[in-house]
Amino acid sequence: MKIEETKITLAETIRNWHRKGWSPATSTNYSFRFPENPDTIFVSRSGVDKSQFTADDFIEVNLQGTPKPRFIDTRPSAETLIHCTIYELFPETQCIVHSHSVYSVLHSAVEQEQVSIQGYEVLKGFHGIVTHETKVDCPIFDNSQDMNAFSETLRTSKNRLTIPAFIMRKHGTYAWGRSLFDAKRHLETIEYLLECEWKLRR
Amino acid sequence: MKIEETKITLAETIRNWHRKGWSPATSTNYSFRFPENPDTIFVSRSGVDKSQFTADDFIEVNLQGTPKPRFIDTRPSAETLIHCTIYELFPETQCIVHSHSVYSVLHSAVEQEQVSIQGYEVLKGFHGIVTHETKVDCPIFDNSQDMNAFSETLRTSKNRLTIPAFIMRKHGTYAWGRSLFDAKRHLETIEYLLECEWKLRR
Amino acid sequence: MKIEETKITLAETIRNWHRKGWSPATSTNYSFRFPENPDTIFVSRSGVDKSQFTADDFIEVNLQGTPKPRFIDTRPSAETLIHCTIYELFPETQCIVHSHSVYSVLHSAVEQEQVSIQGYEVLKGFHGIVTHETKVDCPIFDNSQDMNAFSETLRTSKNRLTIPAFIMRKHGTYAWGRSLFDAKRHLETIEYLLECEWKLRR
Amino acid sequence: MKIEETKITLAETIRNWHRKGWSPATSTNYSFRFPENPDTIFVSRSGVDKSQFTADDFIEVNLQGTPKPRFIDTRPSAETLIHCTIYELFPETQCIVHSHSVYSVLHSAVEQEQVSIQGYEVLKGFHGIVTHETKVDCPIFDNSQDMNAFSETLRTSKNRLTIPAFIMRKHGTYAWGRSLFDAKRHLETIEYLLECEWKLRR
Repeated sequence: MKIEETKITLAETIRNWHRKGWSPATSTNYSFRFPENPDTIFVSRSGVDKSQFTADDFIEVNLQGTPKPRFIDTRPSAETLIHCTIYELFPETQCIVHSHSVYSVLHSAVEQEQVSIQGYEVLKGFHGIVTHETKVDCPIFDNSQDMNAFSETLRTSKNRLTIPAFIMRKHGTYAWGRSLFDAKRHLETIEYLLECEWKLRR
Repeated sequence: MKIEETKITLAETIRNWHRKGWSPATSTNYSFRFPENPDTIFVSRSGVDKSQFTADDFIEVNLQGTPKPRFIDTRPSAETLIHCTIYELFPETQCIVHSHSVYSVLHSAVEQEQVSIQGYEVLKGFHGIVTHETKVDCPIFDNSQDMNAFSETLRTSKNRLTIPAFIMRKHGTYAWGRSLFDAKRHLETIEYLLECEWKLRR
Repeated sequence: MKIEETKITLAETIRNWHRKGWSPATSTNYSFRFPENPDTIFVSRSGVDKSQFTADDFIEVNLQGTPKPRFIDTRPSAETLIHCTIYELFPETQCIVHSHSVYSVLHSAVEQEQVSIQGYEVLKGFHGIVTHETKVDCPIFDNSQDMNAFSETLRTSKNRLTIPAFIMRKHGTYAWGRSLFDAKRHLETIEYLLECEWKLRR
Repeated sequence: MKIEETKITLAETIRNWHRKGWSPATSTNYSFRFPENPDTIFVSRSGVDKSQFTADDFIEVNLQGTPKPRFIDTRPSAETLIHCTIYELFPETQCIVHSHSVYSVLHSAVEQEQVSIQGYEVLKGFHGIVTHETKVDCPIFDNSQDMNAFSETLRTSKNRLTIPAFIMRKHGTYAWGRSLFDAKRHLETIEYLLECEWKLRR
């Protein structure tokens, strides 16, 4: 049924992205939920080698990021609270994905506030954009190990989140959408644009 | 039979090209037809994730890009009219392919009119070229969301289409041929040459 | 059982890393052991094409690198002594891995003593590092064909080995850990960081 | 038996190299022979898409490159004569491989006579080299469509062929060895070194 299918499809996507070098070591984390049950988030558990990630590696947490009782012995990803905050800020969100792509990290090592991207056809990969004749700003936030503090940064910066993606400095990219299909498209869109911009600017 | 085989082979090619990063998000589109029935174009439907593209994702349109009655509920690619115009301008064409490759986009972000390519052995990958001692110009056209306008640009620029490929600015590459085999060879040829030239010029 | 499983998993990892270009030709070598039997090292045999490496390509040597009697006709990797020395210097080590990655080689061609790496989230991939707010130095040692001499260099430089990885100049990276899982994570961590740093500095 | 096995292994190698981008479009060619029957060369036939190359795509030619009677209707690769000349100049050769790698092409677009490579561990991938403390020169010859003329160039330049590899300008790399295993190792060795040198020099 729907939950199991989504787990299988997202796990396959995660393994494919690992092959692209987007999740070195055991890094990155992913989640999804459904409108029928918006208080239950399925999030990747901590410390899994992403080349081996399977449908069994998701655990259930509530909107505060606390594991449901039957997952009490498993640790959710340390960044679960970031997922919770994105679901809170953008309630239509059903899936959140993440990468540690090299180009995301490189931009954030040299740019302060954001990466501005203009005039690419692939900008239409973002929900609601219908022409290449536009400019988007992908915001960069300083990395933090304090997830409460980082969540607060997201809340106070909501007005800067004009596309469904942001960069954590020297860490990676988060992207989200109204479905796994949308979230996947949004991450591939921003990563492609970051690669083009990096190669263009050097 | 021939149609089904071509669908399967082209779908496999599309999935392989997706792995190379040529079709991020749900971008790019593809078509083919046969001399026995030149008025029926099989074109990729809109919005499919190219990592999952299958033989079932082609729909039939006529030479004006209108879906045949039994596909009335499916949307052909928004760029179907570009395909129709290429078939019109070069009637021997049986297959048209497309990429959003990074190198194509990069060249078109810095060059105005064309990318000139000279002296490579792989130039022989283009139909009719038999020696590396030649120079070709791959034209760059400004990107547009108005497919009628872009088709008109192609028509008035036909004399610049001296190789079976062109670049849409910050969008990607189109290539075509007298068969799927030819179109595939032409796209791989131009993409390889664009990569060499980009790395050489930086 | 455990030995066979580890052979299979490490062999698969080796084939995957070969696809990433980390072991051109027949280069690189790998080993593991278990706490129950720390005097027996399972090391990759010499001269195997890493795209074809299988569980059968490990041989058993003792802590001095001498093959066990039943492997007397097989040659262990020429660099077995480096493995023995790492196990000696860091007795908790259970697995050692190696790459000839291009970025490792490039850094060591331009840097003298070390590659300093600071502020990346993925630094947390190294055992014991819990925040990105840190700096590590990956030491570079001159390459040598004299394995006794190189082992002595490692012993006298033990205090520089503050992360479980080092670079041999214009040769490649060694990494190790308390398990295959740890060693794999450490190699992917250092290689990712070296790629980021190289692209950032050019 | 041996011939069939070699066809299967070399065909698999060719498909793997295609995935690395070493044989865009239908380019590149390959051959092997056996000491028991040195006058029969098995060479890849012309015009095959290398992503689809199979054991059935080899045909038999003699030392002059003329197809054996039962292959009279198939065209051997246009560059068969280069293979014949390498077998003539280095009679111990049993296998010849080729790539159109980007790095080979780039070096030959900016260097006149040769690419000098020094001090890499992977130099030991060349037969007979036992230390990294050495320098090799990979010669570059001007590309030509006249295979007789090019073969004559090889003959008169034999003394420059000090490693089992050379570059044809803006065309690609040839490498060879005493077995498929050796030839494969030699091509992967030179391609890896060319990539390192290119990235180092920019």
